[in-house]
Amino acid sequence: MTTQHLSPTARTTPTRGRNRQVDDRSRLMALLSDALVAHLGVVAGTHPVVLPVAFAVDADGPDAGGSLYLHGSVAAGWLGPTLEQDVCVTVTELDGLVLARTGFHHSMNYRSAVVIGRPRQVTDQEERVRALDRLVDHMMPGRAGTLPAATRKELAATAVLALPLAEASMKQRSGGASLEPGDLELTGWAGQVPLRRVADAPVTEDYVSEPVPESVLRRVAELGPA
Amino acid sequence: MTTQHLSPTARTTPTRGRNRQVDDRSRLMALLSDALVAHLGVVAGTHPVVLPVAFAVDADGPDAGGSLYLHGSVAAGWLGPTLEQDVCVTVTELDGLVLARTGFHHSMNYRSAVVIGRPRQVTDQEERVRALDRLVDHMMPGRAGTLPAATRKELAATAVLALPLAEASMKQRSGGASLEPGDLELTGWAGQVPLRRVADAPVTEDYVSEPVPESVLRRVAELGPA
Repeated sequence: MTTQHLSPTARTTPTRGRNRQVDDRSRLMALLSDALVAHLGVVAGTHPVVLPVAFAVDADGPDAGGSLYLHGSVAAGWLGPTLEQDVCVTVTELDGLVLARTGFHHSMNYRSAVVIGRPRQVTDQEERVRALDRLVDHMMPGRAGTLPAATRKELAATAVLALPLAEASMKQRSGGASLEPGDLELTGWAGQVPLRRVADAPVTEDYVSEPVPESVLRRVAELGPA
Repeated sequence: MTTQHLSPTARTTPTRGRNRQVDDRSRLMALLSDALVAHLGVVAGTHPVVLPVAFAVDADGPDAGGSLYLHGSVAAGWLGPTLEQDVCVTVTELDGLVLARTGFHHSMNYRSAVVIGRPRQVTDQEERVRALDRLVDHMMPGRAGTLPAATRKELAATAVLALPLAEASMKQRSGGASLEPGDLELTGWAGQVPLRRVADAPVTEDYVSEPVPESVLRRVAELGPA
């Protein structure tokens, strides 16, 4: 992956905490690779609605800056509005709790990306299939290639959307508690509590006689508590 | 905690997956207690913006259904718009990956709450202090009582918002892969990979000579990988 600068526009330029802004595209891609859930914001009439969604990324996808793929049932209520407006997709990974000597400087360590854009409904059948494979592989790398091809009925029931990654910004906080000069005169413990996501042992369905695939075991070990 | 039914309105009634809707208020409160980050959606002119935020809950707070508290710098760009419109706060915990025999039935296990409402700026000084204490204790139970009181300057720099929990809905998916009759004729492994958040050992700041407090060690052990 090459390192590129993000090109946030005014609406993806953070109004505060610019020191936490990261303009390194490879870090954005790393965050999008680590995270499993995105939060999609759409305007529904007079108010915003924010929903958790699965996603996948194709850095070389046909959209400006690469493509972020979402999918959903063609019957989903958010689908129609999403195609008629600019939406926001936010991806956040929580990395730790920051406990200062004052309540004011308590914080969290995190990485968060905000992508704003007009989604494109993916209609090309090859791109749809590739995007759906990416959505599976995003959860479990290498798995899509082991599954039967989607049926015509399954494809007809599924909408695939692509959002350009061009208008993206990322913020990140890491490290210890911010320190005011006066804090050194205070007493009390201060520090960080690192947080991470782990996987527990896979639970096999009753009707399955096959062993857990190597790819799944690798992923669990990668995430795992060890 | 008493078990109450949520009262979602049309805009917090899921349009799909009603079988995943949970109308038990104690489960909503449990999710809000487990989660550390919320995603706040506001409309910024012509498009929504979704930002990760810390939050806290007072089930007996002065707002209808209880109060969900947010805070931020008085200089934060999202603050003004947030006070002039209905907003959406979504809280999601990811509980596992669901790997089916078909790509179509791949899914995730999760709990997600959607709260919509008009935020109230908290101006009463006692409620502000209580809310800020709750925000610290949400991260680390019992910690606020061990910290010095916020200074006037800190309080002046901090905006506190309260969102009523009245208009909330919750969705939850748990268990194994959905099964079509045809899937039994397929081969291949299927199952779940449980996911959870863990804490690693606290990292003490250089300038601190005090030992890690019991309350922090308890919380780390509670979350911890053991």
